[in-house]
Amino acid sequence: MAGIIERYAKHLPVTEKTPRLTLHEGNTPLIFAPKLSEELDLEVYFKYEGLNPTGSFKDRGMVMAVAKAVEEGSHTIMCASTGNTSAAAAAYAARANLRCIVLIPNNNIALGKLAQAMIYGAEIIAIEGNFDQALKIVRDICEKHPITLVNSVNPYRLEGQKTAAFEICDTLGKAPDVLAIPVGNAGNISAYWKGFKEYYEAGVVDSKPRMFGFEAEGAAALVKGEPIEQPETLATAIRIGNPASWDLALTARDESNGHIDYVTDEEIVEAYRKLASMEGIFAEPASAASLAGLMKMRKLGRIPAGQQVVCVLTGNGLKDPNIALKSVGVDPVVVESTEEAVLGIITQGAGV
Amino acid sequence: MAGIIERYAKHLPVTEKTPRLTLHEGNTPLIFAPKLSEELDLEVYFKYEGLNPTGSFKDRGMVMAVAKAVEEGSHTIMCASTGNTSAAAAAYAARANLRCIVLIPNNNIALGKLAQAMIYGAEIIAIEGNFDQALKIVRDICEKHPITLVNSVNPYRLEGQKTAAFEICDTLGKAPDVLAIPVGNAGNISAYWKGFKEYYEAGVVDSKPRMFGFEAEGAAALVKGEPIEQPETLATAIRIGNPASWDLALTARDESNGHIDYVTDEEIVEAYRKLASMEGIFAEPASAASLAGLMKMRKLGRIPAGQQVVCVLTGNGLKDPNIALKSVGVDPVVVESTEEAVLGIITQGAGV
Repeated sequence: MAGIIERYAKHLPVTEKTPRLTLHEGNTPLIFAPKLSEELDLEVYFKYEGLNPTGSFKDRGMVMAVAKAVEEGSHTIMCASTGNTSAAAAAYAARANLRCIVLIPNNNIALGKLAQAMIYGAEIIAIEGNFDQALKIVRDICEKHPITLVNSVNPYRLEGQKTAAFEICDTLGKAPDVLAIPVGNAGNISAYWKGFKEYYEAGVVDSKPRMFGFEAEGAAALVKGEPIEQPETLATAIRIGNPASWDLALTARDESNGHIDYVTDEEIVEAYRKLASMEGIFAEPASAASLAGLMKMRKLGRIPAGQQVVCVLTGNGLKDPNIALKSVGVDPVVVESTEEAVLGIITQGAGV
Repeated sequence: MAGIIERYAKHLPVTEKTPRLTLHEGNTPLIFAPKLSEELDLEVYFKYEGLNPTGSFKDRGMVMAVAKAVEEGSHTIMCASTGNTSAAAAAYAARANLRCIVLIPNNNIALGKLAQAMIYGAEIIAIEGNFDQALKIVRDICEKHPITLVNSVNPYRLEGQKTAAFEICDTLGKAPDVLAIPVGNAGNISAYWKGFKEYYEAGVVDSKPRMFGFEAEGAAALVKGEPIEQPETLATAIRIGNPASWDLALTARDESNGHIDYVTDEEIVEAYRKLASMEGIFAEPASAASLAGLMKMRKLGRIPAGQQVVCVLTGNGLKDPNIALKSVGVDPVVVESTEEAVLGIITQGAGV
């Protein structure tokens, strides 16, 4: 299967000169969830974006941003990021022979999260400041020098990301009734809405879904109506206090007759575990905000029974396995090396 | 895209009663490698199995093994594993509502590697013994009790794994000239060969590839012609001293006019870094044995220029990010939080 630029060229800002750059992003599975469907009295699917090349939905937007950078003659891309964005930027830069510079704050660097960007060959610079300062420096440098900014203010990012909405419609043969999605920087909910609207306007589908976005309680800027100075949540990928696509997200909500709400960290962890242990899907903690939100909406009666719902899972669980370990929270039972000892544990049903 | 059982039903031991179990395994990308193709004077593709649902090729065999377990009325599956097999077993057991028991040796448990199996809900039992003892206990218990063994001696595992060969042929419209693949337990090279032969015999393709398998030097039982008591390599997924599919692997080699060789850990790490920094693909260290071996074969003149080669990448790099960090081996440059300081580093080209 070709990548998104080739498959969706006529719906994207690509020209004959746009390189058909790809790591075979997109074409991610839409996984039906039989048990959660029954439990919630809905028809539930998961759009599992963790199976993109670098493990998150960011690849869709980044392949567009990097391809356009190449088309425009750029030789260097730059972003401020400590997570999924830097991995995607570094991978596509490697593929396209561009230099990739990643700015990170020096406080609390989790090197594990940067392993991907580093192995893809990005140059990492840590500043003695916070994330906002890193982003400001990146923006200032990219304004004055021939370096392409690939943070989410780059408009090609949302263009690429909207292709996930196309894929959902292509797979189902129609738009779902409801799209449930985690909200951090609010770019993804905006991109999906753009994609659904464009497919509707092009006559590919004859309806649009209601958009339900879910922030983490400790980073619920949209729900609370004001930026959060010190956002806090274990779902690091949506730990954002001042979403860049604030207005677009509210537009998606209002135009679609949808809703934006928050979920607690406890609800996120519960959904995260259910997803893995009931349906066999291991996603990033932040991804589980979509399922956590859906469960909350059903309890509150905001989504009627019988509806077809697609929950977006934005990233692969392997990005952050420590949360899995902490959430399970027990060490394995240790027994002597005999058949009898092992059978004893199995019969008690007392394994971990 | 449907999973492998549905897509390849007529080539698999499935009946009407076999459940169409799936997490949308398979359908993994075949990624062309422009830069390595030029460097090696070959046409090089990577079959990137890291984009399977649990991050490795094991999902193909496990979906078959678990579906057949369900068909046969089993309620519990069991395996000895500290890595990819346990993750795959646990995920499909969760999906199929089976109990999953994983036996591990208690020495040197890397809990990170078990995070996946645990979050999917497997019951982990550690024994005070080594891996061979764990496997023996599992085999003994499964012989005497209604528990399905899903280690690689389960014949359905290879049946499922052979579908990767089908996909390569389906994508290329033909069989490649050469298939390069890491060899640990030797099941995968045997499965691919089975798949290529079956497609050839069914008339789907009119040729078969030469099979080139690569062991790690410290675990090169097939190359040395005898089991290795204490196998050692940083490529943990192929750290196996006594391959279960020993004879099948030699048959694949001989029938295909192929070759089995070893690569050093240094060669594996070099290939692992090239793969990420040149082509933008992050695979498990063990996966890079296929590229490392291909580079060695070209140096030795054992594969002629111009050939079409598919290298199998068995697992996702996110399974073992610590090797990436160690292999890059440097901390980021830290500078003060000003545009000038950052520009100074960029201009020197002295970022990490």
